This record gives sequence, structure tokens and C-alpha cells, in this order.
Amino acid sequence: MENNDLQFKIINTLRSLSVDMVEKANSGHPGMPLGCAPIMFVLWAKIMNFNPEDPLWMNRDRFILSNGHGCALLYSMLHLLGYNYSMDDLKSFRQIHSKTPGHPEYDQSLGIEISTGPLGQGIANGVGMAIASKKLGIDNSIFVMCGDGCLMEGVSYESASLAGHLSLNNLVLIYDDNGITIDGKTDITFTENTKQRFLALGWNVLEIENGDENIDDMQEKLLESKQSSAKPTIIFVKTTIGYGSVLSGKSACHGAPLGTEKTQLLKEFLGLNKEKSFFIADDVKCYFEKLKEEKKNFYNTHCKKALHVENFDTFIKNAIDEIKNIKNGEKDYATRDSSSIVLKHITNLLPNIIVGSADLAESNKTLVSHSYITKNDFTQKYLNYGIREHAMCSIANGISTYNIIPVVSTFLVFITYCLAPIRMAALSKHRTIFVLTHDSVFLGEDGPTHQPVESLTILRSIPNLLTIRPCDVTEVSGAYQIALDYNGPTALIFSRQVLPNILNSDMNKMQKGAYIIHEPNLEDKKVPDLIIVATGSEVSLALEVAKKIGDIRVVSMPCCELFNLQTQEYKNEILPNNVKKISLEAGLTLAWYKYVDYTYGINTFGESGKIGDIKKHFKFTDEDIVAYIKGLKLIGL
Amino acid sequence: MENNDLQFKIINTLRSLSVDMVEKANSGHPGMPLGCAPIMFVLWAKIMNFNPEDPLWMNRDRFILSNGHGCALLYSMLHLLGYNYSMDDLKSFRQIHSKTPGHPEYDQSLGIEISTGPLGQGIANGVGMAIASKKLGIDNSIFVMCGDGCLMEGVSYESASLAGHLSLNNLVLIYDDNGITIDGKTDITFTENTKQRFLALGWNVLEIENGDENIDDMQEKLLESKQSSAKPTIIFVKTTIGYGSVLSGKSACHGAPLGTEKTQLLKEFLGLNKEKSFFIADDVKCYFEKLKEEKKNFYNTHCKKALHVENFDTFIKNAIDEIKNIKNGEKDYATRDSSSIVLKHITNLLPNIIVGSADLAESNKTLVSHSYITKNDFTQKYLNYGIREHAMCSIANGISTYNIIPVVSTFLVFITYCLAPIRMAALSKHRTIFVLTHDSVFLGEDGPTHQPVESLTILRSIPNLLTIRPCDVTEVSGAYQIALDYNGPTALIFSRQVLPNILNSDMNKMQKGAYIIHEPNLEDKKVPDLIIVATGSEVSLALEVAKKIGDIRVVSMPCCELFNLQTQEYKNEILPNNVKKISLEAGLTLAWYKYVDYTYGINTFGESGKIGDIKKHFKFTDEDIVAYIKGLKLIGL
Repeated sequence: MENNDLQFKIINTLRSLSVDMVEKANSGHPGMPLGCAPIMFVLWAKIMNFNPEDPLWMNRDRFILSNGHGCALLYSMLHLLGYNYSMDDLKSFRQIHSKTPGHPEYDQSLGIEISTGPLGQGIANGVGMAIASKKLGIDNSIFVMCGDGCLMEGVSYESASLAGHLSLNNLVLIYDDNGITIDGKTDITFTENTKQRFLALGWNVLEIENGDENIDDMQEKLLESKQSSAKPTIIFVKTTIGYGSVLSGKSACHGAPLGTEKTQLLKEFLGLNKEKSFFIADDVKCYFEKLKEEKKNFYNTHCKKALHVENFDTFIKNAIDEIKNIKNGEKDYATRDSSSIVLKHITNLLPNIIVGSADLAESNKTLVSHSYITKNDFTQKYLNYGIREHAMCSIANGISTYNIIPVVSTFLVFITYCLAPIRMAALSKHRTIFVLTHDSVFLGEDGPTHQPVESLTILRSIPNLLTIRPCDVTEVSGAYQIALDYNGPTALIFSRQVLPNILNSDMNKMQKGAYIIHEPNLEDKKVPDLIIVATGSEVSLALEVAKKIGDIRVVSMPCCELFNLQTQEYKNEILPNNVKKISLEAGLTLAWYKYVDYTYGINTFGESGKIGDIKKHFKFTDEDIVAYIKGLKLIGL
Repeated sequence: MENNDLQFKIINTLRSLSVDMVEKANSGHPGMPLGCAPIMFVLWAKIMNFNPEDPLWMNRDRFILSNGHGCALLYSMLHLLGYNYSMDDLKSFRQIHSKTPGHPEYDQSLGIEISTGPLGQGIANGVGMAIASKKLGIDNSIFVMCGDGCLMEGVSYESASLAGHLSLNNLVLIYDDNGITIDGKTDITFTENTKQRFLALGWNVLEIENGDENIDDMQEKLLESKQSSAKPTIIFVKTTIGYGSVLSGKSACHGAPLGTEKTQLLKEFLGLNKEKSFFIADDVKCYFEKLKEEKKNFYNTHCKKALHVENFDTFIKNAIDEIKNIKNGEKDYATRDSSSIVLKHITNLLPNIIVGSADLAESNKTLVSHSYITKNDFTQKYLNYGIREHAMCSIANGISTYNIIPVVSTFLVFITYCLAPIRMAALSKHRTIFVLTHDSVFLGEDGPTHQPVESLTILRSIPNLLTIRPCDVTEVSGAYQIALDYNGPTALIFSRQVLPNILNSDMNKMQKGAYIIHEPNLEDKKVPDLIIVATGSEVSLALEVAKKIGDIRVVSMPCCELFNLQTQEYKNEILPNNVKKISLEAGLTLAWYKYVDYTYGINTFGESGKIGDIKKHFKFTDEDIVAYIKGLKLIGL
């Protein structure tokens, strides 16, 4: 054991740095850093393996702050450890364009393994990382710190249940069991027996009874968790929120600065100079210099990158080239079926892929293999997520941080269950591929609870996310090519029903988001009478309409986001100003006014019925649309 | 005990009716009805209190089919019980515009207490109904049938944890423990000790070991659950999915018709005439005639409506009138604070309201009372939901079915956690009020994980949902008036930051969704130079801009959905075709092209920083906007 006084001096330095950051920002969360500084110190100093000079070292232990609002503590810790945070960075806490934003933002080079803030996500992300480590054969541990909120969120239950099922013994959850939430004591809402619950989920349960002071116990339990049995471990750490401040143990210190006076009282209590801010004593600095050397020594003796990681980019490039051979043949497919063909190819070609579904593999057509990951075999490429859409997508985000491509699937309408991780994937630009099938009311009899109408608009509203709705085999292949090449998340939207192959569909042209898939014989005219812009299952419908009335150009627009990125010249070429345009998509019209003059879609919830009846009900037959266009009197017939 | 043969004949009639429905529709789920027919029969025939002739009887027991895909069984049961389903209705299963859609759709007059299909929702809805019963002093039971999927979903954990906390002993969860999901046996993903988990959550746990045959045990356990202790009860019912068919025990019988041959084999196994479809024997009919009389006798001796329910509409009308007195005064407020003032008034005036927050009451400003509902006192009007956004909103939907108005609150960005129940509220037109604060990047330092940019677009994309973003105290009051008067869900969007009161804001005019809040002095001109359409915090910004440049009309458009409903004449009056229009809102622009020629918004994720810095970064100062408008060259200056 080391000098106990020095250790508490370090812990109190972490506390005071964190509080100084919140005070200077006049914004932030002092309660958690004051309570968790001891366990944070012990974890990083005595347990975890890492090297601040090579933060991307694949074999490093991972740390996730699921209660991301406590990030002043994390930044302080990373600063002391020698990560790339200067004292000025700490002083810029919560300031615009700083390295130290109000919640941790994904940047592995800075020691931030994943973005957190929305509660519970970090636990699921950690499950994903633990799976990825086992998949790649990396011998490390994933430590996730979390609070009461994280454990109350359903996503943490879903992912903890799966973690227990998979016996993820490389996962350690450090639960800041402080008995306080924003609205008061946890006992106003949260009186379950959490320990018993985690035992029921197949976890080891450990406890640190005095998380404020008993450093030896912390070290012992953390070591035990790291070397543990065949199960994931949760450590209940009894801490005092706002330790040392006059507000200690009260929710009042959760999310607001203490103020000058209370900060000074705190520093007095901690035995620090109350007049000094952002101060680190020399012996503390010296301790971390030594610690850094120790960590580097371990790194130097254990520094082997997982070799198969290095060539991932090459594998992906090859896969993109290979699937270019998959295109329209004689047979028509539902796009979920063409997706299946392409995805099987990709899965065979890539070592770094984990495909899965929230118990809809047979419907999503994502069952790329009948061998799947089990607690005894992580070499497989398929993972059964169970009926856990939210955890699935959050776990996928965690997996993606290992340069493994997670492909996850469910029905399109059920993005309502997992929009939080879809948003996080977009925010952090994780290369997560969301396969979303049953993409319109045309899924039929399951009815409005299962029929998306607003879902495409929702996805298109999320920055950084590519939403691609291909119309046939060729475009499905192109969609996967785009997804594999994109440095961010993609939502691939597929039909349940069979769609006809289209003569001029083009996997290259679609890379620009939209292209002319049918041009009428204009003869003397310079421009067509009308342009129909359609996606997915409505492209063939647009072509039917074009056959019946006037000289109509049909534009296939599988990806609005990519089209938005094109030059004005290209946009004008495809959708010229001087021709009237109409959108055609079996869903909400709201997002189409940006591109067209008239919209044709479905702005109410769906109906349970046969696909033919649904088409008639929503006026999605070629006759209906021809009649509508005639009504507009844009085409002289 | 009654004649056992007859009872099994009834059970087998339920089975064959359900299978006939699926066969005729050539679509649906036979597995669950075959497995759950026995428990369904025992529950309705021997346990539940209800009267098909008065399906709205407040004191009735409630039944929710959380595994809604098994609805052929529910429709068959309701038909036999004498609810308003004809044999033709059963024959129209899953056909368009039928009374028997592919998943149950909310219609209390038909015995459908709430819409189900998306898994797990029904459990949370049941928690809401159990709370509502206790709130209104109704002595009944809420029975929720569910499958593995429901229990794997996070929303069910969240709501079960709260149910245990509140000791909802009027809630009974009947778990169809058949060991099978769509993708195979549950043991591929779901190996937790679920019984131990529910014990940990504070529930009674009962088990029926032979749910296929042991009717006496079913009756005993169901009776025990209804008369139980101080806890909610879960009954594990071991059943065989697809009982009696050659596919029994296999996931293959979950979601596809058996086909003619397997149906005939099934009927032979069940001792029924294999040639007959949709057949009910006379003795079975006779049984239900008698049963109906028994149920009616009970009803007649216990028929007291909860009196305080009857005047709810009057109370609501009064509340709407009362809050008309709340309008702009001398002081400026954040709209979350004006919301607090209005909501406190409403809560005092209404007996039928339950306000709550997902542990953000102090931030959402929804803490209308310091007394709150506890397991010992359901008379209060405030409920601490805990950090459980998903369960909160689903529970609210359940509460709303009792004509109690649930008001639930969280940060706007966290609709990503609870979009499933928001969608269900919209689909079923529940009068749930969602209070969503911290409505833009201007919430400041918490950064992009907490800053909505796409959220308003998402809400506006949901049919039937009103999304209202008021600009000051007067409009906040108007927003609540609209919400209370609307027969469906409303999302109220409030700012964290203080907003100035606006001279011409108008709670009456806003009922049309949009109105002219500032008109320039036009003198000789017939029309303004430009129209700025703004909402919420951007209305005052638009007025600043209008002061500085040209003759600009400012339109406040707090509710796009209501504006969409207005006459074309009104629309042309507010937003005439011959004047250029620009939208101004601190969020995604995608949904604004429908109304304007130019959009001004934020199409990327946010930034952590001081509000002033964020305004500069996103160019949301009056100078920036004046410069942009000058750049458009629409106003000759």
C-alpha cells in the first residue's frame, strides 16, 4: 500500500479541480465528482491498463462514464494521467469549441471511449465493447461507471440481461450508489432490490460499503472484478454525493455550482488552500509522473495490437468491390430479400462484422448464418439480441468503436424503441448499419402499430445519418456500398413485398442520392411535362404512371442526404426549376416540400388489411395517381 | 368445479375459432391462441368482472393483451362473451376496415382497453390503469397478458420496478412462459432468472406449471392474484405454443397460418369436426348465455360508477376558462416557468389530473405539489416516475383511458427514449400531455447530447399529435387551453431561457395555429416586403429583425398542425402567395419548406457552451439574420 495521505491528497485534488471547473464555467455537476473521486482514482491508478501516449492501443482497458454529467471528474483524471488535456482545457470546461464539453464527446485520442449523457447508454455501450473484445480476442476489461439513473433506464436492464446471458466476464459496472437523484432521494421511486436483480441477471455482485474512504477495499473489489469468474460484475459503491461540501448527501449539489463560499468551505474541509483554484501540488504531479512510467512499462511488455484489426479497411474496400457484382437478374425480390443476398456476401468477406436482429431475423432476412455468438464462442458473426431494440442499437454503437461493423435489424416502425442510440450513432458518427424492413403500410395485415408512415421523415431529420431506400436489387447493392464506405451511420430501408427490377436502376448514379431513372422521349420539347421523384417501392409505381400519361421524367431518390451534398448544377440537372415536380412515397409528405411542388403520400396512420386493399384505400394505384396528376392540370391531355 | 369436458370444449372452441380466423385471413399468429386459450377462458369466465352490455362500466376489471399479435384469441373470447363482435367480424379478421384488425386497436366499447402490438407497452399501460384505479378509488383488477418479448423489453422493466415501488396489488401480469420467440427458443437470448428478478422488484410470483391442462390450478392462482397481498403479482404460466398442432412447441407456429392440412390435424387432435370452420356447439353457446347472466347479476349489485368521473368534462371546461386569465404581465419568464404557473392552476382546478416527471421536475418546472403519490396515498396529483421516460409515457397512456389527464415531462431531446408511447398516444388519440422543456441548443452548456435540433421535426411528423411551441406567457396559457380541449395528445415545447413578453401575442388567435403577431406600417404598399414565420424563442428574434430592416410581417406559428386545418382563405391571409416568406426556428429546417420559400435554422448537432456563444456560433443573432436577408436581395436597402 502506498502513502495514504498522498492518495487522499490526490483524491482531493481531483475533487477540487472538478469543482473549480464547475465554478469557473458557472455550470455543471459537482455532486458526482466529489462522491466518485476515490473510486475513480483507484480504478485508473491501480487497476486499469492504458498508455496516454498511445490512446488508441487496442488492448487497453476501456472506461465509460455512463453518468456523463460527472465529466469534470473524468477530465480532471485524464489531465493528471497525462492525456492531452492542458490546464487551460480544464479551465475551458463547458465553453464553446473546448476539449471539455458539458458531457463527454467521443474521441478515443482524448481518452473518451464513447459519448455519454443520455442515461443508461454507457452500460449498453460497454456491453458492446465487451462483446467486441471477446470477438477480437483482446484480453482487457471494460469498466463502466454509472449512477441510479442509468440503472433505472430500461436500456440498462435489456443490456445487462444480455450481458449475463453471454457471461461477459470482461465487463465491470461500477455503480455510484449514492441514494440521490435530481428530484430527491432514490427511495421516492427506486426501492427495488437491485442486488437481487443483478444476481437474477447472472451477474457477480460486489459491494464497497465505504466508497468515500476505504481505498483498500476499493482496490480489492476492483481487482476481484477484473479477475472474476465467468460472469459480468457490478460493484455497488456506497458514496456520498457532494462529499465534503455543506450540501453533501443532498440533490441540491447534483447539477449546480456550489458558489464561491461553499467551494471555499469545501476546500477547507478537504485540507486544501481555499484561495487556490486549479491547483496541483508537486507531490501529486510527481506521483503521476511515476504512474505514467509504470503504465508505459506494462504497455511495452504487452503491446501487441490485435493484428486482424489492421487490415479492416482493406477488407471493407474489397467487400464493396465484390458486391458490385450483385445486381438485377431475372427474378424479382422484396428488397429485404435482396438485402439478405448482399449481406450474406458482405458477412463472408469481412472478418470485422457482427450482424444481428431484435428477434426478427427471419422477417428482417438478416440471418446470415446459423452459427451464432454464444458465451462459449465469440468467433461467430451473428448475434441474437433478443427482443431488445434499444439495447441492440446501443450495444452496436459500442461494438463500432472497435472498428467492427455492427449491422442491426428490426422493423422500421420500431425505431421508436431505439431512437436514442440511433441519434448517438449520428452524433458520434459510429459506422453502425441499421437494417429496417417492413418499410410502409404495404406490409399489410399487421396494421397501424406496425406500419411506418412517419418513420422515414424521422430518420431524415437526424443530422449525419444516411437514410437509403432502394428500389430493387441493384439499388440495394448500391445502398450497402454507400453504407460500407460512409464514415457514419446508415439506415437501410427495405420492403416486405416483392418489387420489380427496374431497367435503368444504377448503383453508381445513386451515389449522388438521386438520379434520372426514366426520361421520356422529348422530341421537340426541351423539358418533360412533369417530374416524379420516388423512392423504394414507389419507383416502379412512378414508372407505371409515366407509361400512362404525358412525358414524365422519373427520378429515383434513394438518399436525400447524399443529394443535398451535390453541386447546384447537378441538382438543377435532375430537378430543374422550370419543370413541376411531384414526390411519390408511401409515407409522410412533410419532408418532400424541400424538393418538389406537389407531394403524394400518406399523412395518416395505416390500416390492417391485404396489401391490395391498402393500396386502394390510400390511393396508391397507378390509376389514382394518374387521376391526381390530371387534376393538377399540369399535363395537357 | 364445472363439467371438465365442457370446459375443454370451450377452450378448444377458442382455439379453433382463432385458427380459423388466421386461416381465412391467410395471415396472423396461431401459436399464442393455441397455447393461451385455457388461461384466457379461466380468466374471463371465472375471475373477471365485466358486463358486455355496459363495456364502459368504470368498475370493470381491465384486460390488456400486451402480446397483441395473439388477438385472434381475444376477439374469439369477446365474441363468445357477447361483446359486439359478430361471427362475420371474426371472419373479417385482418381485413381492411374490419372490427378485427391485426393487432388490437383501442375501443373500450368493444372490450379493447388499449391498443397493443409493440411489445412491452401493455405492461406499462396496465401500470397506468392500476394507478388510475387507485387514484379514483375503484376496486378492480388489471390483468395484463404478456409474452417473453414483453418481458425482455426495457419498458416493462421500468414500469414493473415502479409498480413494485407503488405496491400496485390491483395489477396482475399473466406471463405466457412458452420458451419460444420468433427466432427460436428463448434460451438463445433470455436465460435470466425472471422469477428472481420480479421478486427483486417487489412482486408476488406465482406459477402455473401446466398451463395447457390444469384448469383448477389456473383458477386458484388467478384468484390468489386478485386477492393478493400488498404487491403486484406475476403468474408464470407454462404453456405450449401452438398446442395441439403438429408444430406445437416450435417458433414456426408463431406468426404464420398453419395451412389447411395442419389445421385439420389440429381439429382432430382437439376432438373437433375437422370439416367445420367458425363453428360453436350449442352447449358452448349455452354456457356463455348463462355466464353473461351471472356477470350481469354481479354488475347489477355492484354497479356504481365512480361519481367524480362524470363531471370531468365540466372541470376541464372550467379550467380552460380560468387559465385564460393568465397572460403577459410585467415580468418576463422562461416558457418553462410560465408553464409552471399555468400548470399549477390547472392542477388545482382538476380532480382528474396526474402530473409527473422522469426525475427532472425541478428543471421541467412541473413540480406542482410537494405532496406526491405514494403506495399509501393515491389521492395526490403528482407522481414521481423516476428516470424512466419510456415507462412514464406508456403509463400515462394507460392513465388516460380512465379520463384522467396525465401530464408528463422530460427534456425535449429525450423523446428519443419514449417515442413508442408518444406514437401510441397519437394512434389511439389518448389525451396525454407531454411537457418537453429545454427546447433548443440555447439550453447551453449541457451540449449536443442534451440539445434538440431534430426533435420538433420528429414530433411534427407524427399524425394526430399537436406540437405547440409558444413564445411567451400568453401563448403558454393558450397552448394549455388547446391541449385541454384537444381529444388527443399534445406536445408542449418550452424554453429553458427567459423570453420577452410580446406585445401582440394572442391566446385566441393562436388557436388557428398561426397568426400575424406584427404587421409593419405598409402605407402605400399592399403587401409587406417579407414575412418571417417564427415559433417560440425565435418570435422575439424575428421582431428584432423586423425593427431593423424593411417592412416585415412576423407570423407566430406555435402549432403547424392547427394551421394545416384552416381554410385556404385564412392560410392565404396569413401567408400570401405573392410575398416571400422565411422560417426562423432554432432547429432543423426540413419541415418548414412546406410553408416558406427560405428557411433559417440549425441543421447540425449542437455545441456545449454559453448561450451567447451558441447564438453567435449558429448565427442566431439579429445581425446575422439581417445580413442573411440582405443577402437574399428581397428587400431593397
